[in-house]
Amino acid sequence: MTARKLQCKVPVPSDIDIAQSVEPLPIASVAEACGILPSELSPYGSTKAKVKLSILDRLKDHSSAKYVVVAGMSPTPLGEGKSTTTIGLTQAIGAHLNRPVFACIRQPSQGPTFGIKGGAAGGGYSQVIPMEDFNLHGTGDIHAITAANNLLAAAIDARIFHEVTQSDENLYRRLTAELKDFTPIMKKRLAKLGIHKEFPNELNDEERRRFARLDIDPETVSWRRVTDVNDRMLRSITVGQGKAEKGITFQTSYDISVASEIMAILALVKDLKDMRERFGDIQVARSKSGEPVTAEDIGCAGAMTVLMKDAIEPTLMQTIEGTPVLVHAGPFGNIAHGNSSIVQDMIALKLAGKDGFVVTEAGFGADMGCEKFFNIKCRTSGLQPDAAVIVATVRALKFHGGVEPKNAGVENVEALRTGVSNLLRHIQNVGKFGVPVVVALNRFATDTEAELNLVKELCSEAGAFDVVVTEHYAQGGHGAVALATAVVKATETVPSNFKFLYDDNLSLKQKIETICKEIYGAAGVEFLNGTDEKLEQFEASGFGKFPVCMAKTQYSFSHNPDLKGAPSGFIVPIRDVRVNCGAKFVFPLLGDISTMPGLPTRPAFFGIDIDCETGKIVGLS
Amino acid sequence: MTARKLQCKVPVPSDIDIAQSVEPLPIASVAEACGILPSELSPYGSTKAKVKLSILDRLKDHSSAKYVVVAGMSPTPLGEGKSTTTIGLTQAIGAHLNRPVFACIRQPSQGPTFGIKGGAAGGGYSQVIPMEDFNLHGTGDIHAITAANNLLAAAIDARIFHEVTQSDENLYRRLTAELKDFTPIMKKRLAKLGIHKEFPNELNDEERRRFARLDIDPETVSWRRVTDVNDRMLRSITVGQGKAEKGITFQTSYDISVASEIMAILALVKDLKDMRERFGDIQVARSKSGEPVTAEDIGCAGAMTVLMKDAIEPTLMQTIEGTPVLVHAGPFGNIAHGNSSIVQDMIALKLAGKDGFVVTEAGFGADMGCEKFFNIKCRTSGLQPDAAVIVATVRALKFHGGVEPKNAGVENVEALRTGVSNLLRHIQNVGKFGVPVVVALNRFATDTEAELNLVKELCSEAGAFDVVVTEHYAQGGHGAVALATAVVKATETVPSNFKFLYDDNLSLKQKIETICKEIYGAAGVEFLNGTDEKLEQFEASGFGKFPVCMAKTQYSFSHNPDLKGAPSGFIVPIRDVRVNCGAKFVFPLLGDISTMPGLPTRPAFFGIDIDCETGKIVGLS
Repeated sequence: MTARKLQCKVPVPSDIDIAQSVEPLPIASVAEACGILPSELSPYGSTKAKVKLSILDRLKDHSSAKYVVVAGMSPTPLGEGKSTTTIGLTQAIGAHLNRPVFACIRQPSQGPTFGIKGGAAGGGYSQVIPMEDFNLHGTGDIHAITAANNLLAAAIDARIFHEVTQSDENLYRRLTAELKDFTPIMKKRLAKLGIHKEFPNELNDEERRRFARLDIDPETVSWRRVTDVNDRMLRSITVGQGKAEKGITFQTSYDISVASEIMAILALVKDLKDMRERFGDIQVARSKSGEPVTAEDIGCAGAMTVLMKDAIEPTLMQTIEGTPVLVHAGPFGNIAHGNSSIVQDMIALKLAGKDGFVVTEAGFGADMGCEKFFNIKCRTSGLQPDAAVIVATVRALKFHGGVEPKNAGVENVEALRTGVSNLLRHIQNVGKFGVPVVVALNRFATDTEAELNLVKELCSEAGAFDVVVTEHYAQGGHGAVALATAVVKATETVPSNFKFLYDDNLSLKQKIETICKEIYGAAGVEFLNGTDEKLEQFEASGFGKFPVCMAKTQYSFSHNPDLKGAPSGFIVPIRDVRVNCGAKFVFPLLGDISTMPGLPTRPAFFGIDIDCETGKIVGLS
Repeated sequence: MTARKLQCKVPVPSDIDIAQSVEPLPIASVAEACGILPSELSPYGSTKAKVKLSILDRLKDHSSAKYVVVAGMSPTPLGEGKSTTTIGLTQAIGAHLNRPVFACIRQPSQGPTFGIKGGAAGGGYSQVIPMEDFNLHGTGDIHAITAANNLLAAAIDARIFHEVTQSDENLYRRLTAELKDFTPIMKKRLAKLGIHKEFPNELNDEERRRFARLDIDPETVSWRRVTDVNDRMLRSITVGQGKAEKGITFQTSYDISVASEIMAILALVKDLKDMRERFGDIQVARSKSGEPVTAEDIGCAGAMTVLMKDAIEPTLMQTIEGTPVLVHAGPFGNIAHGNSSIVQDMIALKLAGKDGFVVTEAGFGADMGCEKFFNIKCRTSGLQPDAAVIVATVRALKFHGGVEPKNAGVENVEALRTGVSNLLRHIQNVGKFGVPVVVALNRFATDTEAELNLVKELCSEAGAFDVVVTEHYAQGGHGAVALATAVVKATETVPSNFKFLYDDNLSLKQKIETICKEIYGAAGVEFLNGTDEKLEQFEASGFGKFPVCMAKTQYSFSHNPDLKGAPSGFIVPIRDVRVNCGAKFVFPLLGDISTMPGLPTRPAFFGIDIDCETGKIVGLS
């Protein structure tokens, strides 16, 4: 390893000051140290590089590392430090226990960076560096997603426009460039229509009409445009109001880019071919006669893949202690699966190898990110996790026990005893997947021994393999050595007995009910607005084997964000169900899930600027 | 030089087949060969790299190369091959005359790549490679522009929303994070308001109100969102129709990203500080009392600069013969100045040095791109051009003489004699700037000797230094050796006597009239819709010294695209005038200029796909 010794200051300086106090290692050195060949690396500047998927061919006979997922208790406004723990844990394993290690994390959206939340590179002395590069454009993957998503959106609307304003014959002549040819993409559509002719002049009138008219019902277009900005005014818009658009207007909306199905697909593909096929399978609308219309029908799934050809490669960066980090994908956690990519984990597992560890992060609480990690990501990849880490703080547990945020720093053992129920259920839930759980308790100065001991005792009773107090925010990897040791021990002494929570062959309704009862603690499920019939239609359309990806608030086990702790007895309402045919999951909506955040009155950008003399960024957090 | 010998095939294969038939040199070798230090290079993969602006400090005492601009006759649907000539000419100078050389070209928009036009990497055996990288994301600059542009747009609308929905006191408390602090950006605004207080609790009610309320008149917001897609449905839209937006809706529209003022600014800045200041100066709206509201007032000019910190660096690529190319910026040619960046040309001039040549391309015909190159770009940079190349074809000249495109391949000396007037006026126009002109006639198989001789004779009479027939499309640099020789001779034998067409101190009206009469051949100018008063207001607001950037059709010297050849006697209507306070030019609108193209019935994407086995792109042109 190319580890670097930290000199930690007290009090802990700002994140960007810590990040900028360290000169990153050349990324080529980081790559060399972890076994990536120069020919497998595409540098983007000196501190980040894309890793080619061809590395998986070279390493296909290598043993895999232990696979550890980091999830959280149900999140609170106090912040629990999940990303920081992911990074700190790998710094400890790599730079202090001297074992091969990779952190696998998501690329953050620029929306939160300039809006409320700030960046996502970890914090304190447990960070990915350079945090500016990590939090800004990265290697451009989210921009590529935006481009591919919006090309498809423009293509759908333009196709409707051209079909409405042209005769069958004109449409056909123009599509075929005056009867010149069918492109290979057009030939796919001909094959789908059962028309086995090679040249445009061979088709009869009826075949020409069928080829040229997708006949999209504008009311059914479900594909939305995206932008990587918190832009609330784009939540609901009317387009097409220009004179040249001849009154053909549509009601639609923008999502933030990371909520695009393209992002969900990127995180789940195994190779380029898989990506090309999934893009083609994306359903964007229905025809007036009810037939699904796909991105392949629109004709731009090839161009979308071309736009995404570099984005499929994960990006190598480093922690502040010089251990390797792979950054890739970042699907929305509440309407998609909230996990980084499969290719990234596959590459890391092979590179870290038999004696090594891959620590991957799952978004939000374990009821969301971890359930989806197991049931969707691992089901798709075939990878087997060896341990889970659940991150909690005494302060956040007291919040779940009814304490106001401003009083979270005051000892309150009774509130803690109530609130810890939240953590305990997460521990029990992960246990249902047959994976050992280590609890990481991020220590705050205000935590008392009585409080820490109570949490330790109850977590052990609930079946946690170990409960470890950590201080990696203030101390870097050194502060997470005990956690790392516990994780190593769990993977090496507890045989993983990983199993899915539900079988592929259960009905979609049963899959939803299983998650709601087993993971959320619900008493039952209520299928509203005809969602049970819609699920049956999905099954009839061949989507019955898809896993379900619950679109739920992250703040509670239930659908109601105000139900703290470990609620039970509630009935989960399924308000709508949708299917992502490219990402291959069905997603039930349990409430209003916002897919476009807004800017607050004082957004983060008020503090962000550049020092024009040094070129250094100031104020990014 | 690291030149490569071409094996040119007959007939000429497709652009992408030629491009993919050559293995690009490692970009580090290209950089080394042209004198860029490894520390000044940020590689993006193995075939492109950003060049740090610090190189200008290192080379500040070096001599500069000769500065050659390539422009065209008025463009026609037949295509004249301006980009191809730019690339072919540098291949000839570098790989055949063995002189140091750089091509400086613009980054293309993805809109045309997937829409009608296809890519912009040159063509045949005169191309930038890899053409896929060039035509797709490049090094992400346009994506950064989109991000910065749309952050500002979201910030403006969010600010209006928050001001409308909150009391003075709430607004002030939230902006100052409960009276915690003013950020440095907020302190700039305090200074502008003449409020010299340091802490939020020190301001009185009136000062709080003035600080917190920009009081933007929504009707005056001129800042629009952008996307790098041909999306006609976004030309006119209504936003804010979501329930949470409480009825605060706006009429607005999207432009294609390259039409953003941010792009115009990128092409004109000299360094980071210049960019930061210009971003702050951007005027986005007026307050209800008529005061200008800037990006600095909105508070996100710092964050915009942070988003653009890498985009300010030009990208090094190579021609198919291994000579260096700098790619940077690409402002719209009809509403902005249509030239690549100043920093790119400055770097190239220093690197090519005393014996070398920099060939930079100006968009559209010489009446547009070249006039703006001289009057805006050179005025801003202080650089002096040494020669101009005007690209024409016999076919296109016959089109200007009234021949239908389908008959352009038939000898027609009379039509040519009429149409060549277009080229002759461009030659005379460039002469007015004191710069010698070489005409490049791109040869087609159908051109006859009689036709070529007529053009040569008339161009020489009109004052061209030389008229050279070129075949670089089919032969690469070898086919442009005669052109290169003529260009070298022009720069070495004709003393450049460069002068601007108009003085900074002329009134804006006079500047417009000068261009219309001297360059377009107009009999006069008509200022409609109160544009003369608006120009006087611009002068009163301190923008009188700005150059003017004409927003005119590229297809004719006049405002009417149907007037071919060299029309005269027409009156130019000025329908509107606007000012870009960040880019620092006034732009008069002579007609409807579309800033958002649409997708045709058969867009280019129908032919574009990826070979999933090899990862190679097919169908890109």
